[in-house]
Amino acid sequence: MRKIGKQEIEDMAIGAALLGTGGGGDPYIGKLMALQAIEEYGEVILLDSEEVPDDALVVPSSMMGAPTVMLEKAPSGEEAIRAFNQLEEYLGEKIYGTFPIEAGGVNSMLPFALAARLGIPVIDADGMGRAFPELQMVTFYLDGISATPAIIADEKGNTALLSTIDNVWTERIARSATIQMGGSVMCAMYSMKAKDLKKSGITNILKLEEEIGKSIRLAKINNVNPIEKILETVNGFELFKGKVIDIDRKTESGFAKGVATFEGLEQNKGENLKLRFQNEHLIAQTNEKVLCMTPDLIAVLDSETGLPITTEGIRYGSRCVVIGIPCHPKWRTEKGIATVGPNYFGYDMAYTPVEELVKKGVTQ
Amino acid sequence: MRKIGKQEIEDMAIGAALLGTGGGGDPYIGKLMALQAIEEYGEVILLDSEEVPDDALVVPSSMMGAPTVMLEKAPSGEEAIRAFNQLEEYLGEKIYGTFPIEAGGVNSMLPFALAARLGIPVIDADGMGRAFPELQMVTFYLDGISATPAIIADEKGNTALLSTIDNVWTERIARSATIQMGGSVMCAMYSMKAKDLKKSGITNILKLEEEIGKSIRLAKINNVNPIEKILETVNGFELFKGKVIDIDRKTESGFAKGVATFEGLEQNKGENLKLRFQNEHLIAQTNEKVLCMTPDLIAVLDSETGLPITTEGIRYGSRCVVIGIPCHPKWRTEKGIATVGPNYFGYDMAYTPVEELVKKGVTQ
Repeated sequence: MRKIGKQEIEDMAIGAALLGTGGGGDPYIGKLMALQAIEEYGEVILLDSEEVPDDALVVPSSMMGAPTVMLEKAPSGEEAIRAFNQLEEYLGEKIYGTFPIEAGGVNSMLPFALAARLGIPVIDADGMGRAFPELQMVTFYLDGISATPAIIADEKGNTALLSTIDNVWTERIARSATIQMGGSVMCAMYSMKAKDLKKSGITNILKLEEEIGKSIRLAKINNVNPIEKILETVNGFELFKGKVIDIDRKTESGFAKGVATFEGLEQNKGENLKLRFQNEHLIAQTNEKVLCMTPDLIAVLDSETGLPITTEGIRYGSRCVVIGIPCHPKWRTEKGIATVGPNYFGYDMAYTPVEELVKKGVTQ
Repeated sequence: MRKIGKQEIEDMAIGAALLGTGGGGDPYIGKLMALQAIEEYGEVILLDSEEVPDDALVVPSSMMGAPTVMLEKAPSGEEAIRAFNQLEEYLGEKIYGTFPIEAGGVNSMLPFALAARLGIPVIDADGMGRAFPELQMVTFYLDGISATPAIIADEKGNTALLSTIDNVWTERIARSATIQMGGSVMCAMYSMKAKDLKKSGITNILKLEEEIGKSIRLAKINNVNPIEKILETVNGFELFKGKVIDIDRKTESGFAKGVATFEGLEQNKGENLKLRFQNEHLIAQTNEKVLCMTPDLIAVLDSETGLPITTEGIRYGSRCVVIGIPCHPKWRTEKGIATVGPNYFGYDMAYTPVEELVKKGVTQ
């Protein structure tokens, strides 16, 4: 148990954006949302998952929609309160604490903003250990935990409470409602007992996010190479150093989809890298070979500062280092690969772990 | 109070299909649904609205979606039970009785099928006195009665409970969810106290439907012209006699939209009629003038039998009489015209009552 202050929030937001693999929102917006709520409503307590009683009701904070929309339509916080209150009423039970559904500059910060308002603790766990675009793409789904009763709420005052036969149906129906509701909504879904979160969640993820953010911050102060520090912290691999020469991005079916092209620099001179994304980065490949594929993490970092760049932040001419990070072992199971592997997103390739790809590459 | 038997169901289904103005479903399917439920679960009591206690909770039976989809995916009845049960649980109150949301071959029969299963009475009132394509298009909306809490349920087992800031938002969100759920769903929405139904609903509509159906049936037995009998019963006007020479129909955004073209016969020889529809008939016009426009009712009848033809039943070569019927005065108010008049559906014309159009016509 510890109180979360300004520095922790700033470090976590940056680290979370890196693990958000291009999605999960802008850390600057996320940081502001959390800090503003803490300033207005008071400090937030962060608990290790082991500190929470097994039978406590816990609910992740999450939003649904295209991050490109979220930039224009920031959540007020009221819609999350409404969703949580309605869920408590429906379940007839108080919510003990909240936690992030996924890693991301905004999505890891949402629980702090909500927890400050509700006066409940944040728990150090999430459902992905990274970010993914669809709501069934959580470790809870792999363990058979239902997304429903699922509530989505928009900033206008509309809410929908869904009960569905499985989490893929929750995704379908909630996604179409989200588009009608203006492109992004706040969610109260995947309510569970703390014992299930301890077993099924990715624990200590906020600590890792803070550590990543801190290593980037300290590298700047100590004038050392931030990329090296990051790679040490996350056990990652440098995949490509390059300059953005093309970015093709559109909001389609409620997702930000597209492809960014990087022209190689230094050791990658003469090569091009294509980075394909759907809210999050999915595939990094050169003309020759695939370097990293979902569910392993692909992050784009500013080559000077080491700061993570989200898909909506990729700009023509930016000099970047693209890194790969092995995903949590839960995603490398058969059901994990079926849920978030390359085939699910329409890429005809067998999942190969990034550490193997880095050694030998895969010819396309 | 009276028990409803086979003959009443058959007559009502036909009359309801006529008032359904091309939408509201096929009376043959509606009749079968109601009769099957009555046979299996027992007879249904029909109450005049005045027989229901003022503070009784009453909920219309309705479905949402394109009737073209409903032909392939008939509701099982289970989804309506689920929707009603969930609404009772949410409101913490038993539902006293049900009634049709609108007139239509299926939609007027749904309450009988559900009432038989639930063992509750049907009340002789609806929310349109005809059929309309969107869920805010009810007299209840004109009187400020909320559609929410609104539950939609599909045959697979998915449900959504909506709370929205107004009934137009209910329509938007429910419509998109309906498309995801397979194109048609059962609804439990517009719950109200009986005193509000008495004031705001179109009462005695089932009696009128039965009377229309009966006049068509007796005309056949007595070998008299059914069209004349119908026009007497509904105070309607014969607009056009013709043969279908073209039908352009597509399912778009969850609606059956299109236009049917009729070539004039007998007194209309040399003229063509275009009939524009969105689930229901909206505008009937010749090259010269508009003959009838929404919210007045436009029905297409088989010129031999007088039986109503739904938009999905219009076939090339069919010989038809198109009739116009003045709508309920509630629809001719300012808010009524704004909600369901020609402008709402994208037609740039001022609403003119059918009785005036028949006298003088409107030059386009």
